[in-house]
Amino acid sequence: MRYGIVLFPAKKLQDLANSYRKRYDPHYALIPPHLTLKTPFEASDEEIKAISKELRRSARELRPVQLEVTKISSFSPVNNVIYLKVEPTEELKELHSMLHSGALESEPEYAFVPHITIGQKLSDAEMADVLGQLKMQDNHHSEQIDRFHLLYQLENGAWTVYETFILEKEEI
Amino acid sequence: MRYGIVLFPAKKLQDLANSYRKRYDPHYALIPPHLTLKTPFEASDEEIKAISKELRRSARELRPVQLEVTKISSFSPVNNVIYLKVEPTEELKELHSMLHSGALESEPEYAFVPHITIGQKLSDAEMADVLGQLKMQDNHHSEQIDRFHLLYQLENGAWTVYETFILEKEEI
Repeated sequence: MRYGIVLFPAKKLQDLANSYRKRYDPHYALIPPHLTLKTPFEASDEEIKAISKELRRSARELRPVQLEVTKISSFSPVNNVIYLKVEPTEELKELHSMLHSGALESEPEYAFVPHITIGQKLSDAEMADVLGQLKMQDNHHSEQIDRFHLLYQLENGAWTVYETFILEKEEI
Repeated sequence: MRYGIVLFPAKKLQDLANSYRKRYDPHYALIPPHLTLKTPFEASDEEIKAISKELRRSARELRPVQLEVTKISSFSPVNNVIYLKVEPTEELKELHSMLHSGALESEPEYAFVPHITIGQKLSDAEMADVLGQLKMQDNHHSEQIDRFHLLYQLENGAWTVYETFILEKEEI
């Protein structure tokens, strides 16, 4: 089966992201607004049980993540994707690196640019127009997130949560 | 915020349910196929933290649930809903009752008729037609489920998972 690992921001930021995604993101109905921590990977039932077990252990040793959205940005001209740019804090980088080691050892496909997608597969004209509008607004958000989720993909492309992991380490 | 508690069947049964839901269920894009264990309820951030804590404790004391789908049925004429009928096994009733006691004390809105909705808001004619077709098929499924999920609802009506709880008690 195909699995992925994400952070969900709190409801307020999800509602904001969805107000754009509804119009600009063809994945709107397939998954709630999210920050991808690990891109889709294949695993068997046996493998995923071992991975879950390891994630439960590792999550206990990691601190909650401060999610800081600073601005709207895009991957253009590589990709016509518009996203909320998330600051790569130490906690977030630590979490990302844990999810690419041990049972989940793999080279990340891209350098880690933490983001919450709000539009994709836009035409060049649409892209310039939307970006122009969004950049006029205040796009600052800050919140603490104490969990991440392992999901699997259904045949229709939608994602279902397999398990939640709580980041339990307390601040010193 | 508005919360709900559900079981997700395994991918195979979700894919099957979605093959009907795509055509017959307006909630298709809002939540994966599921069995509702507790209908939507309101809770504050503080309340939900206490509820989660209690659910973590309680889940440890409950056994995984055997999910037995025996046939297609409907709530007609009360409601034009078509569903996969799930046997109310002891484990399932025990889980349902735990979710209506303690911090979650409440009278269930309806008698507990465990089911996975595959169609709703159908016209009478559509309903009779679809039911007739589906009843010709073999609709038996059996699987063990060792987890349930607490979800919250976004402004667009979609549901995001807040936390997964694992049913950890081993069979004697």
